[in-house]
Amino acid sequence: MIKVGIIGATGYAGAEIVRILMQHPQAEVVWYGSRSYVDQKYAEVYRNFFEIIENVCEGDDLTEMAKKVDVIFTATPQGFLAGVLTEEILEQVKIVDLSADYRLKDVAVYEKWYGIEHKSPQFLKEAVYGLCEINRELVKKARLVANPGCYTTCSILTAYPLVKEGLIDPMSLIVDAKSGTSGAGRGAKIPNLFCEVNESIKPYGVATHRHTPEIEEQLGYACGSDVVINFTPHLVPMNRGILATEYATLKPVKRPDGTTGLPTEEMIRAAYKKYYADEYFVRVLPKGSWPETRWVEGSNFVDIGFTIDERTGRVIMCGALDNLVKGAAGQAVQNMNLLFGLPENTGLTMMPVFP
Amino acid sequence: MIKVGIIGATGYAGAEIVRILMQHPQAEVVWYGSRSYVDQKYAEVYRNFFEIIENVCEGDDLTEMAKKVDVIFTATPQGFLAGVLTEEILEQVKIVDLSADYRLKDVAVYEKWYGIEHKSPQFLKEAVYGLCEINRELVKKARLVANPGCYTTCSILTAYPLVKEGLIDPMSLIVDAKSGTSGAGRGAKIPNLFCEVNESIKPYGVATHRHTPEIEEQLGYACGSDVVINFTPHLVPMNRGILATEYATLKPVKRPDGTTGLPTEEMIRAAYKKYYADEYFVRVLPKGSWPETRWVEGSNFVDIGFTIDERTGRVIMCGALDNLVKGAAGQAVQNMNLLFGLPENTGLTMMPVFP
Amino acid sequence: MIKVGIIGATGYAGAEIVRILMQHPQAEVVWYGSRSYVDQKYAEVYRNFFEIIENVCEGDDLTEMAKKVDVIFTATPQGFLAGVLTEEILEQVKIVDLSADYRLKDVAVYEKWYGIEHKSPQFLKEAVYGLCEINRELVKKARLVANPGCYTTCSILTAYPLVKEGLIDPMSLIVDAKSGTSGAGRGAKIPNLFCEVNESIKPYGVATHRHTPEIEEQLGYACGSDVVINFTPHLVPMNRGILATEYATLKPVKRPDGTTGLPTEEMIRAAYKKYYADEYFVRVLPKGSWPETRWVEGSNFVDIGFTIDERTGRVIMCGALDNLVKGAAGQAVQNMNLLFGLPENTGLTMMPVFP
Amino acid sequence: MIKVGIIGATGYAGAEIVRILMQHPQAEVVWYGSRSYVDQKYAEVYRNFFEIIENVCEGDDLTEMAKKVDVIFTATPQGFLAGVLTEEILEQVKIVDLSADYRLKDVAVYEKWYGIEHKSPQFLKEAVYGLCEINRELVKKARLVANPGCYTTCSILTAYPLVKEGLIDPMSLIVDAKSGTSGAGRGAKIPNLFCEVNESIKPYGVATHRHTPEIEEQLGYACGSDVVINFTPHLVPMNRGILATEYATLKPVKRPDGTTGLPTEEMIRAAYKKYYADEYFVRVLPKGSWPETRWVEGSNFVDIGFTIDERTGRVIMCGALDNLVKGAAGQAVQNMNLLFGLPENTGLTMMPVFP
Repeated sequence: MIKVGIIGATGYAGAEIVRILMQHPQAEVVWYGSRSYVDQKYAEVYRNFFEIIENVCEGDDLTEMAKKVDVIFTATPQGFLAGVLTEEILEQVKIVDLSADYRLKDVAVYEKWYGIEHKSPQFLKEAVYGLCEINRELVKKARLVANPGCYTTCSILTAYPLVKEGLIDPMSLIVDAKSGTSGAGRGAKIPNLFCEVNESIKPYGVATHRHTPEIEEQLGYACGSDVVINFTPHLVPMNRGILATEYATLKPVKRPDGTTGLPTEEMIRAAYKKYYADEYFVRVLPKGSWPETRWVEGSNFVDIGFTIDERTGRVIMCGALDNLVKGAAGQAVQNMNLLFGLPENTGLTMMPVFP
Repeated sequence: MIKVGIIGATGYAGAEIVRILMQHPQAEVVWYGSRSYVDQKYAEVYRNFFEIIENVCEGDDLTEMAKKVDVIFTATPQGFLAGVLTEEILEQVKIVDLSADYRLKDVAVYEKWYGIEHKSPQFLKEAVYGLCEINRELVKKARLVANPGCYTTCSILTAYPLVKEGLIDPMSLIVDAKSGTSGAGRGAKIPNLFCEVNESIKPYGVATHRHTPEIEEQLGYACGSDVVINFTPHLVPMNRGILATEYATLKPVKRPDGTTGLPTEEMIRAAYKKYYADEYFVRVLPKGSWPETRWVEGSNFVDIGFTIDERTGRVIMCGALDNLVKGAAGQAVQNMNLLFGLPENTGLTMMPVFP
Repeated sequence: MIKVGIIGATGYAGAEIVRILMQHPQAEVVWYGSRSYVDQKYAEVYRNFFEIIENVCEGDDLTEMAKKVDVIFTATPQGFLAGVLTEEILEQVKIVDLSADYRLKDVAVYEKWYGIEHKSPQFLKEAVYGLCEINRELVKKARLVANPGCYTTCSILTAYPLVKEGLIDPMSLIVDAKSGTSGAGRGAKIPNLFCEVNESIKPYGVATHRHTPEIEEQLGYACGSDVVINFTPHLVPMNRGILATEYATLKPVKRPDGTTGLPTEEMIRAAYKKYYADEYFVRVLPKGSWPETRWVEGSNFVDIGFTIDERTGRVIMCGALDNLVKGAAGQAVQNMNLLFGLPENTGLTMMPVFP
Repeated sequence: MIKVGIIGATGYAGAEIVRILMQHPQAEVVWYGSRSYVDQKYAEVYRNFFEIIENVCEGDDLTEMAKKVDVIFTATPQGFLAGVLTEEILEQVKIVDLSADYRLKDVAVYEKWYGIEHKSPQFLKEAVYGLCEINRELVKKARLVANPGCYTTCSILTAYPLVKEGLIDPMSLIVDAKSGTSGAGRGAKIPNLFCEVNESIKPYGVATHRHTPEIEEQLGYACGSDVVINFTPHLVPMNRGILATEYATLKPVKRPDGTTGLPTEEMIRAAYKKYYADEYFVRVLPKGSWPETRWVEGSNFVDIGFTIDERTGRVIMCGALDNLVKGAAGQAVQNMNLLFGLPENTGLTMMPVFP
């Protein structure tokens, strides 16, 4: 059994790791780290686990934890892990970090978008960006995995094959994303009260959201050149789910019949197939079908649909996932599976829950 | 592998059986019976199963199905199974009926509350009321299981120990129940439209709801005398969940210390413990805690809490479950497990999903 | 124009007073009192009033305010008004208090249920309980009006005629109430976050909720004897609305035909008619119709329905209102209208908003 | 009093016209036209009007209605009005058509996007597109007003000043819109059931939605050249509200300081001010504030915000309105006010309802 420690086990993402690992045949949570609930029974904080989990919450001492577990998930605020990580710890334990501390390779970009100093840039190089479908082989050999953000996972996977294959102009990419409210965390803030969120939709972080450079960096690797995009998140009155609607201008390419012109639907579908045909968690929908967050809720799937609008010469792509699963805890467990040589979907085959 | 057929696989309860059985290690759905979607791919009707279930919907011919499967779940309108069930079928296959056709032993009561003629009363006697926690041993030997209603499962389990132990006056029982909207089914009706249900709560079926006689019959068996109750269901703007708040007058009893008086909190807790201490799916909450549907959503658990109000001499009990799981599909699978000699919680250990 | 001051203008109830008075032809808010937002523009706190209200929030100095306005609404925590009210203030200004400070005549009951000392019990006697439909004439002559609680308004109006006419046993009364989340206020608390409330229903304050003695006291006046009830509130995932489902045992009475027996449906309807036929804001629904909160949302109406269950000898009554309007701000304005000799529904004829 | 007839009074938009006109000092609904509910009391279909509206629903005979009323609102399916409208009718009565029949000047475009034949193209020329803020003077003199679509009102008003002033490239415009579910109407369809819509977000009509050519035509008039856009609507789990997030590439212009370059924030704000400073219903938010549908719910306001993203050279604009008010019934009444020479906001000054 893999022994698991979680720092931030009492946040929504941490609790979702717990939920998933309760069904995992080869892992077991032995340290429920928390800052606010130390010494309280975990099942009092999340009463869904009443009579199932008897552990009490422990503190967030990474050094101590590293001695007792095989892998640590850090579902913590930005800056926490960077502030305490050491080589000694990394020699003892694998780490899957759900914060943004090691996602961006360029420390200046991190410090600009997050507004805090990075305390351990020396680990940036070795950290592997844990988008499993793209970096699978690197993850397998990693010690430190930077688990991607929820919006970024959805945004990148939706556009990746077309960027990689040069079918769209990456500088034309616009990502209009919509998220359920669990993405905002469990902090007690007025804007997240039921009556403030319910019966409303709003944009936020327009042109300034921190997932922007993360998307740009990863898509930049895909196409081999700089990518600058517009990314606009919105808050939707639902618990879970992210939908990313993406717009990009098609690039003239050489078509299979030898002519040059905009990519056809078949070419785009072929690009998706090339990268995702064997991916268990990525489901490319047939023509005319569009992702809806309800069809992935509670699962680790990403659904993707697209169409070409010949009137404008753009492709419209759409991706959906559960922000707490494939957007956070599920992907973290997927990374853990890779780190420990398990089949990638071990413990992750739960069906989407509908309705 | 147990071969499973479902009639009504495209309703919400049917789809929940499918979802649960996808995770069941010893059962496999081989017949997705439907009336409205014959020849359509099942995963087109419920796209959460896209790329997972390749079957197409078949018809609802019970005789044909009985030849091909080991157990049939009928998630059908009242009257369907009673109209087609035969001895020949029952000799070939086990049946778990999620409709009300065989729940009430008295055909006159059935016909009065349901307003339809019962077409096969000859099976009423052998049918076992499938409330596993109470009728476990009978279910194990049954051919035909009448799976309890969603409201009834919640209402009965919440009050059962106190009725059975004679701690409350069963004629004083009032059940005020609240349900999510999936209980209303997937039929296209104006009252179930999003805008009609959202931002509102309403009572319905006041003093006439069909689950009333079912609760009364079962609690009557528990106390050995007639039970007549008030039962009022309400529709709540959420997908899943039933909460039953129950009120009953405490009966003077002989207390452990030899005096006569109203039962104490300890006595009531002891009664719950007596019946539920070993029940995996029933969780009696500690003093001061109350059930909330969010803590059982997606799982087969029933949470129960209570308090004594000394000012009024009543006990207030409260139970919560997921109407599609313990209130329908989960309990049906629990019954299947009993019918086939499997551990009762096989395939039913999924955690509640929160948030 | 009546000059209005509000203390607690930045809470949900306070903001609803503002919304209503914006449409009131003879009143004008001149003091937006707040504790947390002093010197901020009111329309920044409630941006629905952007470009409509230019005022900034001021403090909560009652003495100062009393010099500048004709009426003060206090939408404040329990104990605030009792701590600052003086005879001098009451000589200058009318006060409608939305807190519980002057609702209960017995200071001991107040201190027991609210757990705080009452700082100005000398005003308890003169304070008028502002349930307009019942205390109209007293309100007209009052200086200090204790505006009823949201649950209490709904609970009392629903049962009042039957209690008053002796048709039910008031000691048998059970009130099972359900409320939208705005009733919990705008404080930043984890239990009121969107993800905690959404997709769930829960009871709270079982057998201990502070509206209990308020209902008991007022119904006690109606029947001339002590009333002890069970009152159980529940939190529902919607913004507005309260539904109270009430159960009571019918009392044998002399019927119109001279016989003695339980009251008939006609007798009960006649009782409702006797008290509410001329009440603009109380709508007694025809047989077979039941209140739903969506039909009163945004308005000052209370809808009431009932049925007799002859099987149990009980009457089931149900009332619905908007907790922020008839349950708080609307009733407060209704009281203001009475205090100033205006037609009672002035500024209160807004239609329910549906959907 | 203006006598009003409504065809389609039992749909959501029709009922909203009724709600608004109940507060209108100079108009009175005298004909509640319906197809499905003829001879039923209107207040039984919309019980918010119980004891307020005593009328019964009448049929949808336009000729008959034209004799009895001063103005007719048609809140009907596409093709209805075009199929029955005659010169005789238009000589007797003003018509505000909430369907799309007379919105598009080019009958071929109508027939292509709507897939039906236009039965009375002879009225297309005289029909005035009733976007009051833009076509005010034409509406005043009209007989037939084509009330704009909900998405279109929001999309056009948000971008109009920048298109009109040449600050953005109209061919680069992308509109990503999100709507509450009342926009889908009151028809009994499975996709609109509570459990299907709740806890999910989905795109629909991608690259094919019928409001696309309407936006393109009107913005084309603004800039004097063809406009082709991407428009993607999404369904959000809430009753009311539309949010349009719009992206466009800024065009180099001559700046106030004589240089040529991209428009500054001040220039864009000045453009909004030029067109909307005197518009009662359009509220341009200050820098850093963004529209949220909750702040306009129940009112006729449109809130607009924007920012420049210098990294991409695009402007991101966002508009919010209540789809049933400014997006349908409120704008229809605004048009009626213009038609009859009343102040434009008569009966339309209701505050947004929050929460």
